[in-house]
Amino acid sequence: MERILINQIQENDGKKVLIKGRVLNMRNLGNIVFLIVQDYTGTIQVVFSKNIGTKTGEAVAIEGIAKKEPRSKYGFEIQGEKLEIVSNITEDIPFDLAKNDLNLNLPTLLDHRTLSLRHPKVQAIFKLYDILLKGYETVMREEGFTEIKTSKILGAATEGGANFFKIKYFDKEATLAQSPQFYKQIMVGVFERVFEIGSAFRAEPHFTTRHVNEYVSLDAEMGFIKNFYDIINMLNRVVKKMFLIIEKEGKPYLDMYNIKISGVPDQIPCVKLVEIKKIIKEKYNYTIPENTDIDPEGERLAGKYAREKFNSDFIFITHYPWSEKPFYTMPSEENPEETCGFDLLFKGLEIVTGGQRIHIYKQLIENMEKKKIKPDGMEFYLDTFKYALPPHGGWGMGSERLIQKILELNSIKEAILFPRDVKRLIP
Amino acid sequence: MERILINQIQENDGKKVLIKGRVLNMRNLGNIVFLIVQDYTGTIQVVFSKNIGTKTGEAVAIEGIAKKEPRSKYGFEIQGEKLEIVSNITEDIPFDLAKNDLNLNLPTLLDHRTLSLRHPKVQAIFKLYDILLKGYETVMREEGFTEIKTSKILGAATEGGANFFKIKYFDKEATLAQSPQFYKQIMVGVFERVFEIGSAFRAEPHFTTRHVNEYVSLDAEMGFIKNFYDIINMLNRVVKKMFLIIEKEGKPYLDMYNIKISGVPDQIPCVKLVEIKKIIKEKYNYTIPENTDIDPEGERLAGKYAREKFNSDFIFITHYPWSEKPFYTMPSEENPEETCGFDLLFKGLEIVTGGQRIHIYKQLIENMEKKKIKPDGMEFYLDTFKYALPPHGGWGMGSERLIQKILELNSIKEAILFPRDVKRLIP
Repeated sequence: MERILINQIQENDGKKVLIKGRVLNMRNLGNIVFLIVQDYTGTIQVVFSKNIGTKTGEAVAIEGIAKKEPRSKYGFEIQGEKLEIVSNITEDIPFDLAKNDLNLNLPTLLDHRTLSLRHPKVQAIFKLYDILLKGYETVMREEGFTEIKTSKILGAATEGGANFFKIKYFDKEATLAQSPQFYKQIMVGVFERVFEIGSAFRAEPHFTTRHVNEYVSLDAEMGFIKNFYDIINMLNRVVKKMFLIIEKEGKPYLDMYNIKISGVPDQIPCVKLVEIKKIIKEKYNYTIPENTDIDPEGERLAGKYAREKFNSDFIFITHYPWSEKPFYTMPSEENPEETCGFDLLFKGLEIVTGGQRIHIYKQLIENMEKKKIKPDGMEFYLDTFKYALPPHGGWGMGSERLIQKILELNSIKEAILFPRDVKRLIP
Repeated sequence: MERILINQIQENDGKKVLIKGRVLNMRNLGNIVFLIVQDYTGTIQVVFSKNIGTKTGEAVAIEGIAKKEPRSKYGFEIQGEKLEIVSNITEDIPFDLAKNDLNLNLPTLLDHRTLSLRHPKVQAIFKLYDILLKGYETVMREEGFTEIKTSKILGAATEGGANFFKIKYFDKEATLAQSPQFYKQIMVGVFERVFEIGSAFRAEPHFTTRHVNEYVSLDAEMGFIKNFYDIINMLNRVVKKMFLIIEKEGKPYLDMYNIKISGVPDQIPCVKLVEIKKIIKEKYNYTIPENTDIDPEGERLAGKYAREKFNSDFIFITHYPWSEKPFYTMPSEENPEETCGFDLLFKGLEIVTGGQRIHIYKQLIENMEKKKIKPDGMEFYLDTFKYALPPHGGWGMGSERLIQKILELNSIKEAILFPRDVKRLIP
């Protein structure tokens, strides 16, 4: 017999079918056994009127009759006739995958990733992540961006050299890319609009719920902008379209977390950093520490303000200070102490950093001198600006943070299949 | 005035328009100047009846009248009225970007990547690469695969430890992933069918036209297979669909290289490695060296045989020897000296390696012992097999090799924006 997929069950009403999949749950009532079986297209209930020698978690092949069953939440069920174990469990599973919630602490959840990923609510996170990737790819192409892939191994000492992981590269030393920044700017000179989905590596010794040392960055860069609001408007449109895709295609997964996507405004509110600091002080009586542009509590309160004042989960914070932004960030025309750099916050968490870049060679060199940055190793990047790069800018979006906040997960690590932090290299 | 895009020119026939883009070429005949201008949607000729102060390579904004011009290969042209330089060139371009072919040697082409990438024939390579990525993403989703992203920083010593780049990871040592092998197998237990587009790193000191030390691997893994021909058939279908997309959407870029896609057979021929060795010896009088499964000349001749005998650019070579394949490769049932491992050759070059994997815990441990591989650091992977992994297998496809061979480029490095080899870390 040929296998049918679970989503083909309706077409086989009343017929004998063969399905293959994993036993997600099993209830044995003595003379009757209920199985929930999952394949890559869906889940279905199978009823056996005899004892069968399988258990939760095993890979099975089942022959039986497909029939309508309105009482089943799947609309159909299979009257099981024969069950063959395709692959069996040889060791007891250390926790109950059939419970509605795993309720494991984070280290246990991550240590047992092979198994915890099989839980339907954990699967849902990564189904939604798949939709997010598809959404970004689709929307960016619609907007005329070309997908690029740039090298993650870099010649040493670019962009200052702090917080980079070092690699032994044959007889040289190299570093892992923090972002595709230089390359995507170069590519503006080639395709005008480019995007990249790629690994980013940060050697920062963080121990928080919002940082990891390796993540997947959704990058973009676009040329011939009039000013940095062209970037903000593009990002607004991209996020809006992505959220529509996530809302539509991700519904079953969002439902499992009782999440209603509230939608992205046509015009996400923009507030200057200096203003939001004032507002946070006046409205919430919180002072953002002196040595930071905005701290996590400040971001949380900015998110609260966006919700209260604009009924929005999103808010752009703009005009980050010159002293805090990288050397390639375009200074603001009105106030050289400020830049055309921005963050996008979602539910009080920074999910995007972006901005306009300096596109004039002389200005770039002067800005580097002011910031005491040596050009060694960056010549290939700097040369680009001798050859007519148009005004441009872009962003880097943290894909996992987006999923974390959409599903309101406690830690970003729950939104990564095999996360890396200071202590965790395995699994 | 609002900018229009070059692909909107038809809708603006007879109207005054503003375009922005890069001057790809400029011919000055004294009283008449022809410019070819490119934006991210296309190219157009602009004619000025006066001298204008720009040069090839600059970023410009042009106002003029859009008009039909059947003699122009673009069908339309613009009668230029006003030209503004948006960003100018401050240093002479070291080679002529307006020539039909750059004809640079490979090191020069790569050293001057900022500029060489702007040449239309070089742009075409990466436009085709964009279509390839889109094709893979689209086709894999159609076939029910879920897109995953797995960590590229690995705990040390997995899979033997040879040919890995080493990283200093806080107080530990880590390695860069050669492939997502372990993770995609674990994910078969979660989603049954998964694919990944990600960076792969190989610390092999090669100096060839087909190797680089960092590349983008198109991976897949699928469960509940009957035997390894299920993988071969899936890969056959995926490649066939991808090539249809590339042929259709990539036509202008293929045309620039005079490439006709010959199409992928419904059934790509499969030949066992031992048989192809005999055939190569008998037909082409070439003996594949003893210490290798198949060498580059052998692959080239296998490709020649596929073309002559089957009229196919593709050929599967199957049943690679047990001694040459990694410990997780499923041995052949008929002959334990052979495996269910295969390569797919395209125009005489290996572009895919794949195979069925061992899915039974006991068999896997025994195979590791036979191969003298220690399980240290691999426990998270090995544990997976205690919990009922179905029969499965998959592949890793070299995205850049595929583009290299489609366009018949001399070196794989021409198909990578910023390639990495033993000597090259910059740009």
